[in-house]
Amino acid sequence: MNSIVIFGAGNVAHHLLKAFSSAKDFRVIQVFNHKPESLISLSTVTETTINLAKVKPADIYLMAVKDDAISEIADNIIYKEALMLHTSGAVDIEVFSNFSRRGVFYPLQTFSKNKEVDFSQIPFCIEANKKDDLQLLESLGKSISENVYHINSQQRKSLHVAAVFVSNFVNYLYTEGEAICKKNNIPFEILQPLIMETASKVTKMNPMEAQTGPAKRNDVGVLQSHLSQLNKEQQKLYSLLTQSIQALHGKEL
Amino acid sequence: MNSIVIFGAGNVAHHLLKAFSSAKDFRVIQVFNHKPESLISLSTVTETTINLAKVKPADIYLMAVKDDAISEIADNIIYKEALMLHTSGAVDIEVFSNFSRRGVFYPLQTFSKNKEVDFSQIPFCIEANKKDDLQLLESLGKSISENVYHINSQQRKSLHVAAVFVSNFVNYLYTEGEAICKKNNIPFEILQPLIMETASKVTKMNPMEAQTGPAKRNDVGVLQSHLSQLNKEQQKLYSLLTQSIQALHGKEL
Repeated sequence: MNSIVIFGAGNVAHHLLKAFSSAKDFRVIQVFNHKPESLISLSTVTETTINLAKVKPADIYLMAVKDDAISEIADNIIYKEALMLHTSGAVDIEVFSNFSRRGVFYPLQTFSKNKEVDFSQIPFCIEANKKDDLQLLESLGKSISENVYHINSQQRKSLHVAAVFVSNFVNYLYTEGEAICKKNNIPFEILQPLIMETASKVTKMNPMEAQTGPAKRNDVGVLQSHLSQLNKEQQKLYSLLTQSIQALHGKEL
Repeated sequence: MNSIVIFGAGNVAHHLLKAFSSAKDFRVIQVFNHKPESLISLSTVTETTINLAKVKPADIYLMAVKDDAISEIADNIIYKEALMLHTSGAVDIEVFSNFSRRGVFYPLQTFSKNKEVDFSQIPFCIEANKKDDLQLLESLGKSISENVYHINSQQRKSLHVAAVFVSNFVNYLYTEGEAICKKNNIPFEILQPLIMETASKVTKMNPMEAQTGPAKRNDVGVLQSHLSQLNKEQQKLYSLLTQSIQALHGKEL
C-alpha cells in the first residue's frame, strides 16, 4: 500500500481524491490546502491540513495546485525520499530538481466540481526520472484509468497547447453559439446534438476529413450573410477561422 | 401515404433517404441528381433520374442540394400544387415564392457519408407558410426524429451561424490540435476523451460556466510558453481566442 498526500483542493484534487478512494494499492492519507474553506467538503473523506509543517510522511506527494505554486510548496517538503508528482500539463518535471525522485501525473481532461467524470476513460500522461517510479506511476494511473501514456515533458507541453485548442477554445466557441441563440430566442439545446456529433465524428475519422461548412465550400453568399449578423468581436473570430479553414482546405471553386 | 421526391445525392440527401425508408406515412418515390455517378449507390433503394423533365408528380419535393441550386431546380418543377421544401440553414422560405405551398425542413446536424448518424436525436427545424403544411412537416419530422422545432427563417439564419461556430469552427480547432500532436509524435486519440467531455459538459451546464484554461486564469507564463510553440497562423488564432475569453470572463488576477 502506497500512501499519498494530495496538495490542492481545486477541481483536479477533488476528482483525484474521489477516484483514489476505490484504488487498491494506493491510499490518500492527507490533503493539504492553503485555504481552509476548500477543505471542508474533503474532511469527511480524509485528513486535511492548512499547515505545511504538519504534512505527513508519505510515499507520494501529489501536487494538484496552480502551476506557480508547485515549486513553492515543494520547497517546504522535508521528506526528501518521497516521489514528488505534479498534475500540470505545462510544468517541467525538473521543477522538482531538489528531489531525487521526480514525476508527472497529468490527467488530460477538463474538470468542473459539479460535473462527474468517468475516470476510467481519462488519459493519464506519466513521466518519471527513474525506471522504478515510472512503473509505480503506471500502477497509479491504472488504478483509476484504462488509458496511461508515457509522455515526456516536451510532448506534454505540446499536448497542453493542443488541449487548449480542442477544449478551452472549443468551449469558447460554444459560448458564442449560445450567445447567438439567446439573442434570437432559440433554445441552446437545439445545438447540443450537433455539438456531440461534431466531437464524436473525430473519434471515427480525422478532423481534416470531417470538415464541412460554408468556409470550406467557399460559399460567399452565406459567408457574407453570416458576417452581417455578428457583432464586431464575433466578426473577427468568424473571419480569422474562415481564412484558416480556407488556407488549409483550399477554396473549392 | 405522402410521396416524396428528393433532389440531391449529397450527404444530407443520402442520410434522409435512408431515414425515410423506415418512416410510416412517407415514401420516397424518386431521387433526382445532376450527376449520375452519385445516384448509383441510391438506385437500389429507389427510382433515380438525372433529367428534371422526368421528375414524377409527388406530394412533397425536398431539395437537399447546394443553396445556389435550390431556386434553379424549383424553376423547373411543373407540379405547382406540391409542398416545396428545402433543407438549408441559410436560405429563406421565400425562395419558393412561385409556389403556393412553401416550407423548410432543416436538419441541424453535420453529415458525412461514411459516418452513421442517429436520426432520432437530430433536431429538425421546420417552417411552412400554411398551417396545414406545418402540421404535415411536424409529422414528417416526427417520422424520423424525436426533436422537431418550429423555427422561422430569421431564427434559422441565426441558428446556422451558431452552428458554424459550434461545429465547423470547432472541427477546425480539432484539426489544429491534431496537427500539434502529429508534429510531436503524440497519438491524437489521447485528446479524444477531452474532446468528448468538453462537448458533453455543455449539455449539463452552460458554456460560460464550463470555461477553464490558462486564458480564463490569465496564466501569463503558460500563455507565453504556448505561443512560443506555435506557428504564425496558430499564434493568430491563439491570441484572438485568448483575448476573446479574457474579454468575456475578465482577467482573474
